[in-house]
Amino acid sequence: MPYNDTFLRACRRDPVPYTPVWLMRQAGRYMPEYRAIRARLGFLELCHDPAAAAEVTVTAAERLEVDAAILFADILLVLEPLGLGLQFTPADGPVLTRPVRTPDDVSRLPDFDPAALSFVYDAVRLARRALHIPLIGFAGAPFTLASYAIEGGGSRTYIHTKNLMHRYPEAWHALMEKLVNAVAAYLREQIAAGAQAVQVFDSWVGCLTPWDYRRFVLPHMRDLFAALPEGVPAIHFGTGTSGLLESMRAAGGSVIGVDWRIDLAVAWQRIGYDRAIQGNLDPVVLLADRDSIRDHVHEILRQAAGRHGHIFNLGHGILPVTPVDHVRYLVDLVHNVSAANARRVR
Amino acid sequence: MPYNDTFLRACRRDPVPYTPVWLMRQAGRYMPEYRAIRARLGFLELCHDPAAAAEVTVTAAERLEVDAAILFADILLVLEPLGLGLQFTPADGPVLTRPVRTPDDVSRLPDFDPAALSFVYDAVRLARRALHIPLIGFAGAPFTLASYAIEGGGSRTYIHTKNLMHRYPEAWHALMEKLVNAVAAYLREQIAAGAQAVQVFDSWVGCLTPWDYRRFVLPHMRDLFAALPEGVPAIHFGTGTSGLLESMRAAGGSVIGVDWRIDLAVAWQRIGYDRAIQGNLDPVVLLADRDSIRDHVHEILRQAAGRHGHIFNLGHGILPVTPVDHVRYLVDLVHNVSAANARRVR
Repeated sequence: MPYNDTFLRACRRDPVPYTPVWLMRQAGRYMPEYRAIRARLGFLELCHDPAAAAEVTVTAAERLEVDAAILFADILLVLEPLGLGLQFTPADGPVLTRPVRTPDDVSRLPDFDPAALSFVYDAVRLARRALHIPLIGFAGAPFTLASYAIEGGGSRTYIHTKNLMHRYPEAWHALMEKLVNAVAAYLREQIAAGAQAVQVFDSWVGCLTPWDYRRFVLPHMRDLFAALPEGVPAIHFGTGTSGLLESMRAAGGSVIGVDWRIDLAVAWQRIGYDRAIQGNLDPVVLLADRDSIRDHVHEILRQAAGRHGHIFNLGHGILPVTPVDHVRYLVDLVHNVSAANARRVR
Repeated sequence: MPYNDTFLRACRRDPVPYTPVWLMRQAGRYMPEYRAIRARLGFLELCHDPAAAAEVTVTAAERLEVDAAILFADILLVLEPLGLGLQFTPADGPVLTRPVRTPDDVSRLPDFDPAALSFVYDAVRLARRALHIPLIGFAGAPFTLASYAIEGGGSRTYIHTKNLMHRYPEAWHALMEKLVNAVAAYLREQIAAGAQAVQVFDSWVGCLTPWDYRRFVLPHMRDLFAALPEGVPAIHFGTGTSGLLESMRAAGGSVIGVDWRIDLAVAWQRIGYDRAIQGNLDPVVLLADRDSIRDHVHEILRQAAGRHGHIFNLGHGILPVTPVDHVRYLVDLVHNVSAANARRVR
């Protein structure tokens, strides 16, 4: 089986014969193979089991015929060695039973030991060996990790997070520095184990004012990207970031991932054409009919046309109720339509 | 007591001596006077009682010394006569027990009779009589109303709403037309009763792709704004709309309301300086300390400086846990800082 490096070439904005595609949460509950494994393993158990995590990673990528695999793991695993009591509810929602709420809580955090997550690097090695496409490693971004660590789980308002940020800026910056060091070390180990690209998920950073982003997040994100090895594509992803794109670009990442709340063409113009872009189908469109999927794919590819460096993806993870055959249909469609477009340009 | 029309003049982008301010949900659970009334009246009961709704409206505006009052009501009241079973949970969350899910459900909707909401117009008349500042009427925008009508309540993903939109576009457009007619008739009655401005809350429209907004929402919003009387300021508000501002401007509204996820200066530039702008403090900042509130107010006023037509507001409603004295502090600060800025410019 020939090796398919279309994804890596698109990350570097090299010419490619078609637009590569992978999907956030492509290994997930919508897929029967995944549910079968989860029938015998809890969510964290699966993350902790390198053979099972690698199997889930590879099965999903092969089943969908996507152009990149993403390691099966969770953005919050990097918090586990910090002793915050990471657990997952039956619906896979994260809970941290010992949240960080005060400056004292921040100063009591232990140093991060990347060796505590060796099961992740083992999973990377196993998956990499079985794949004929690139493998993406990943972690939560410091802000998004901090939001979970402080709230103790998901949130709609981020009251405790913003409160710590606004009332105790020194503690906030200390926490972010700690998380930058942890995430950088963790991603470097994933790369050393064989991950050929990494994605930094700043999933919830879109809850911030751009002014707060520039003061409380951007400098730390810059440190994080500077601490990653050169030459390995880094995807900088967030949702609801239409007001932050220029700042995210300034923070770093060779690829910027955007959600569906902005036109891809507008996003790319704001980010700058010297970066690759990843996105941006609304995951809910995959629940509609094939006509709607086709219309949206054509529109996104039209908006990206004529430039190198587009990686097709959803704007966020696949929803659990998504039909698998719609995902398969999407992948084929992106390949076929973009290949036809590319032939027309040549 | 002299009449204060600073708010209306700012809506028209006329020069004003200071930046007017009012706050979404300024009459709400954070305020002890409101909780006292709610101890004897349920949420819908309060909406249905013109004297009590007017009292809540006026008390909040007087207590805060803001420059405009907004009628105490709910964005979903306009759905009540459509027979969807509107109720509110103990936490004031809306539930519609008979949601609209299919094209048949849409075609079975009754015609809207604005007389069914006469208690709202009565409340407008009572509040207007007691106020020395302008009174704002309001309604949910057709998309946001449709999202509640279809989901049967709030949502994180809007799966059913987007599904109807994508799979049954004819039914979608029929539903939007019906809602445009209802909202237009309802707002015209509020204006006839004495509301001097109206706000259209498209609170959740930011969940859409700009492409879907242009096809499925914009034409209807244009019809809605065209159906409102000229000369009455109409505020077009949404959250998470950083990717939609140009389209919202095209849809209409003499004032565009934005949330905190975009720099006010950037938003105004995209909207165009021939419209007034309303916003955009992050409501969570009101939970921090006075220093943080002051910093954010200075930053927002700095971004708006040198132009006519800024109305200060939050980016969304006041949170129930907000300290009242922080809200009072905010109002005074906006008045004082903007007055000093205005004197400096002259």
